[in-house]
Amino acid sequence: MTERLATQFAFLAEVEKLKSVTRATPIHDASRPENSAEHSWTLALYALVLADQAAPGVDVLRAVRMLLIHDIVEIDVGDVPIHLANGTAHGSAEIQAAELAAAKRIFGILPKDMADEFQALWEEFEANETPTAIYAKSLDRTQPVLLNEQAGGGSWVDYDVQWEELETRVGTKIARGLPGVWDWVQARIRPWFDARGR
Amino acid sequence: MTERLATQFAFLAEVEKLKSVTRATPIHDASRPENSAEHSWTLALYALVLADQAAPGVDVLRAVRMLLIHDIVEIDVGDVPIHLANGTAHGSAEIQAAELAAAKRIFGILPKDMADEFQALWEEFEANETPTAIYAKSLDRTQPVLLNEQAGGGSWVDYDVQWEELETRVGTKIARGLPGVWDWVQARIRPWFDARGR
Ligand SMILES: [Ca+2]
Repeated sequence: MTERLATQFAFLAEVEKLKSVTRATPIHDASRPENSAEHSWTLALYALVLADQAAPGVDVLRAVRMLLIHDIVEIDVGDVPIHLANGTAHGSAEIQAAELAAAKRIFGILPKDMADEFQALWEEFEANETPTAIYAKSLDRTQPVLLNEQAGGGSWVDYDVQWEELETRVGTKIARGLPGVWDWVQARIRPWFDARGR
Repeated sequence: MTERLATQFAFLAEVEKLKSVTRATPIHDASRPENSAEHSWTLALYALVLADQAAPGVDVLRAVRMLLIHDIVEIDVGDVPIHLANGTAHGSAEIQAAELAAAKRIFGILPKDMADEFQALWEEFEANETPTAIYAKSLDRTQPVLLNEQAGGGSWVDYDVQWEELETRVGTKIARGLPGVWDWVQARIRPWFDARGR
């Protein structure tokens, strides 16, 4: 039992490093970049608060667990911004392979039964096919958009994002799991783009 | 429905501010103070990873939800370090009253049904009486100790903490919900105190 505890705590010490992985989105007051640990916290809350928007078949608490661990691979790979390289970097085959290796390494620190469980949760999220994964992925696309708006533009400014680009790279993905949310978010953020002729 | 969504998103925008509330504990590499949002993420993971240490009657996923929201009151009140003022500030009547007002204000942004649910979760955590709350509270005491050790001393240095003080203020509280964990943590951190004659 002590050996099991040691591996559990080795994992918990390792994932502390996610606090040093920064994202393209700034925090609410634009004072600094958001990090992937606090981003994951926000998403877990999104999953709880927007539960009444979830499609039939979504397991909200499974989505919470998924979102808590979904970015842990970034400890090895870093965050790949959605608007980087005109949206072509995110989800490239190279990065997917690096993320899979990272998942095996980091979840592999855990006792075998838990490692398998976390690996399966992460792979389900990445595959984006089950209702729960689609819900979680849609939330993961929603929060940065609202945070950019809250921060006055954030990564839309840094990557010179146009409305059509946002719609393609982000909007369609939010709408897949959360069509009502995308309607609401669109109405909220459209003025920012209109005001800048984007 | 749109009005309900608007209040849900107003709450989610408000809680983004927890990322600006800093704690006494530094992050893993001692490069900066931890903030209460990323701290909450870590605790939710602790609850998942240490589930096999939970006493009978603990609802692990309820503990996850509790830990995700347990520090949101700090947006108004700030974090009160456990070792501040020789351990007398944390949990004072004045601070408890301010935290209750903060909970009502912030959870009150949500639609009534969700506000009531979050308020009840937070009050259960604070009362520290149910098996689930005791589990969550014990985790909330465990993580900062291990993070201080990982960071080379952290708030133990800043507040000149002695071993007996740590045992009283923290150890007894970890042991209440997680006696096996406290045994393991003690063995891990005792050398730091011994080496410094504390
Ligand atoms: Ca706390």
